[in-house]
Amino acid sequence: MASLRAAARLRPVASRVARSSQPRFYGAAAAVKSSPPSGEQPFFPDEPAGPTVKTAIPGPITKKAIDDLHKVFDTRSLNMMANYQKSFGNYIADPDGNVLLDVYAQIASIPVGYNNPSLHKVALSEEMASALINRPALGNFPSHDWADVLRTGILKAAPKGLDQVFTAMAGSDANETAYKAAFMWRRQQERGGAHVEFSEEDITSSMLNQAPGAPQLSILSFKTAFHGRLFGSLSTTRSKPIHKLDIPAFDWPQATFPLLKYPLEEHVQENAKIEAEALADVERIITTHHLPPCAVVIEPIQSEGGDNHASPAFFRGLRALTKKHNILMIVDEVQTGVGATGKFWAHDHWDLETPPDMVTFSKKAQTAGYYFGNPELRPNKPYRQFNTWMGDPARAILFRAIIDEIERLDLVKNTANVGDYLYGGIEQLAKRYPGEIMNLRGKGQGTFIAFDSPRRDEFLKKAKNVGVNIGGSGERAVRLRPMLIFQRHHADILLEALEKIVKS
Amino acid sequence: MASLRAAARLRPVASRVARSSQPRFYGAAAAVKSSPPSGEQPFFPDEPAGPTVKTAIPGPITKKAIDDLHKVFDTRSLNMMANYQKSFGNYIADPDGNVLLDVYAQIASIPVGYNNPSLHKVALSEEMASALINRPALGNFPSHDWADVLRTGILKAAPKGLDQVFTAMAGSDANETAYKAAFMWRRQQERGGAHVEFSEEDITSSMLNQAPGAPQLSILSFKTAFHGRLFGSLSTTRSKPIHKLDIPAFDWPQATFPLLKYPLEEHVQENAKIEAEALADVERIITTHHLPPCAVVIEPIQSEGGDNHASPAFFRGLRALTKKHNILMIVDEVQTGVGATGKFWAHDHWDLETPPDMVTFSKKAQTAGYYFGNPELRPNKPYRQFNTWMGDPARAILFRAIIDEIERLDLVKNTANVGDYLYGGIEQLAKRYPGEIMNLRGKGQGTFIAFDSPRRDEFLKKAKNVGVNIGGSGERAVRLRPMLIFQRHHADILLEALEKIVKS
Repeated sequence: MASLRAAARLRPVASRVARSSQPRFYGAAAAVKSSPPSGEQPFFPDEPAGPTVKTAIPGPITKKAIDDLHKVFDTRSLNMMANYQKSFGNYIADPDGNVLLDVYAQIASIPVGYNNPSLHKVALSEEMASALINRPALGNFPSHDWADVLRTGILKAAPKGLDQVFTAMAGSDANETAYKAAFMWRRQQERGGAHVEFSEEDITSSMLNQAPGAPQLSILSFKTAFHGRLFGSLSTTRSKPIHKLDIPAFDWPQATFPLLKYPLEEHVQENAKIEAEALADVERIITTHHLPPCAVVIEPIQSEGGDNHASPAFFRGLRALTKKHNILMIVDEVQTGVGATGKFWAHDHWDLETPPDMVTFSKKAQTAGYYFGNPELRPNKPYRQFNTWMGDPARAILFRAIIDEIERLDLVKNTANVGDYLYGGIEQLAKRYPGEIMNLRGKGQGTFIAFDSPRRDEFLKKAKNVGVNIGGSGERAVRLRPMLIFQRHHADILLEALEKIVKS
Repeated sequence: MASLRAAARLRPVASRVARSSQPRFYGAAAAVKSSPPSGEQPFFPDEPAGPTVKTAIPGPITKKAIDDLHKVFDTRSLNMMANYQKSFGNYIADPDGNVLLDVYAQIASIPVGYNNPSLHKVALSEEMASALINRPALGNFPSHDWADVLRTGILKAAPKGLDQVFTAMAGSDANETAYKAAFMWRRQQERGGAHVEFSEEDITSSMLNQAPGAPQLSILSFKTAFHGRLFGSLSTTRSKPIHKLDIPAFDWPQATFPLLKYPLEEHVQENAKIEAEALADVERIITTHHLPPCAVVIEPIQSEGGDNHASPAFFRGLRALTKKHNILMIVDEVQTGVGATGKFWAHDHWDLETPPDMVTFSKKAQTAGYYFGNPELRPNKPYRQFNTWMGDPARAILFRAIIDEIERLDLVKNTANVGDYLYGGIEQLAKRYPGEIMNLRGKGQGTFIAFDSPRRDEFLKKAKNVGVNIGGSGERAVRLRPMLIFQRHHADILLEALEKIVKS
């Protein structure tokens, strides 16, 4: 039904992309109120009514600024230089006055819009100022109200069954500290419990980077996975060679991720077989690898690796295997977490019998860390899981404001609904342009939608010319990562832009 | 001279520690103006005149708060719970109304005082609000004014000869990204230059975590070094077993750090021999280790490892060795950087002929990363050194404000001067209590002063009762890490407290 509504509204994108001489941005006259044909109530009436493309992107002013920046800061991965003062809601502005609908959102990390007014207010509060200028070493000198900040923020959003947190700085160290917790847990089990002291051999060998103190154990990850780019996390990352080349790595194992065939409904039996084989591969590695895995880490949807999905049954099967072999299950929700899949946590879709052992988060949370529930995952002594800052209360306060905004606007539900609508629209497009939009995936997963394009990099470049900022993943996926405040009228603009691109 | 002045002023600490029924804090009536006997101009006239100890620490209110926090956040490493709203300048307050002179400063990471008025103003600015709520993926979507933020901030403070920066989140990832740059540089040299493409074998093996793509190379660090606690940085950390136990590590080598004998002037020849042997050990490892080092990483003063110093001649010798064998020198200034040693960067004391290849920073900078100058340290392709956030512009803006405050108050010079004064005072104390204050070190190194105590942990506990918050390092060092705004009148209070402790 949603798809029909979307299809009915597909019009050439030119009618919506204003090529005015004046950029439209936050506070500009043109408001979205007059725009949504659905009669939908906009979350932010001051948002631009649509994109404005004034110049080729990058334009002349931006090019000069890039040349200048490049002298001191590598800009070769620059996608688009932004003017954040002029960005608002779903729209990102650049120094040349271009304003694009942003469905990449800082690599899926902006949750509730640029210059979100509620966040702006919190950012200017005395509480935030104190957190910024009196940054504590959280493990040594936490603030008297840190428990309250956690309970009303990070822990309010905790996945079911996980009521404790270790805070971190970003996705990579969130994963690595979770891995450390897993290694300590495993060795503690091998020793016979928390009360058993380290042996002299453990102590001596650990200082030499040798076993048994530095144990011959591993973290099991999946092919095409992405878990970060520091040395431990990169050893579990298998996305692209450019991420890994020339960096020493631990000899940790990788299991086959089930690469499903689309459309799913036409490949039910085949996909079930693919998933069964992937689980068999996991079990084979757990039982035979020369560095026994103490945990398996997995993304609910492999994101950097190309937007690879698996079924809830696969994840339940994986959970069962970890239970059977007494290893931990770490769910990396760095990209999938905080509402984008139509659930607050993507693993909420799986209906697991027992929660994952640890869930890592970052990106849209604007802070990072890992959740856990089992008290045995607290190391048996202090200072084993520790560093100077252990996160950032300023960013924790921001996450609390983000959670409030998600609740206020019911954004997880919004993402589920608008995601269905957008998926339906793209499905129609895919039928009309089957050679251009392939392997559409993410049905029922909110706005966490992707498809393959035979000319992906060209596709992404053209998107900017028609007023939309879109990202890619893997070798040929176009990945959509709208913010949680993405609504139907934005979906309409996006659908028109997609049609314009594939037609060109 | 300074030492005589200090000695003359040693009075029982009780006269200064107020045991009033009212806590003194920011905005309270008691101001420091009436206090400094030296007639010194206080940087912050509203600072408390001295510590206030009202209860045992932790007091009853704090104990309850710790119990509550412990349910959701591990508090076993908690040193003191703080009330940052009531802390000011050099003084940290707790929920029970105790106010301590803080010479630990969040593990050496608070540069210009709690609730510093200049930083407070910047924290409440629109520029800061935008940086907080519009957090960019810096490598993809930098702000149009990012070059300006860098040049007027992080790069304004750049070590001589290093004019580029890669920004990071904290000390661990600052070091690990520097290590990654070193590995990529080395492999590029082995391939024959930036223009030479990766081989098919490199590409394939990197995805399997195997050589040559994941090379059999290493980073050389020193015994008792500390460089962080993620997997790569922890492999170079050799401080304490509790930091390393149960965590897999790379089989990277460690060289002997010269453990000098004190007082230095009585062990000149012996120490020269110790340093020569340490350099010989470095050269032996560079030329013979089965995983060839592509870089050596070193702290100017080993901090977590016990405040171990070496002479400028040693560091010049190390630089010469790295040049001779064509490996990189990474100076880890995470704890020593930003003014505390009486120079902005501690390695400024060494008078090197060529700058280090990379210098890492964090802590007092309140942001992190590594500086470099050689363009070859930019990897030959984009996305090799990359992650989503690549630092935090909000924290970069704060560092800019910190640099401005350091300049406004001439704080590096202040630290040099007050450090000499404090050192002299402790030297006198050490003569009077030779069994209690041993191996005093840090002469001419600003306030980066430490000494050994035979009952160190007891010493640190007693310090709180006499109104001072002090940290330790290594097995028995008392390490002083005052902020840059620490003045003579604070030194007098500290000296009195130290005497009270050693006398008790």
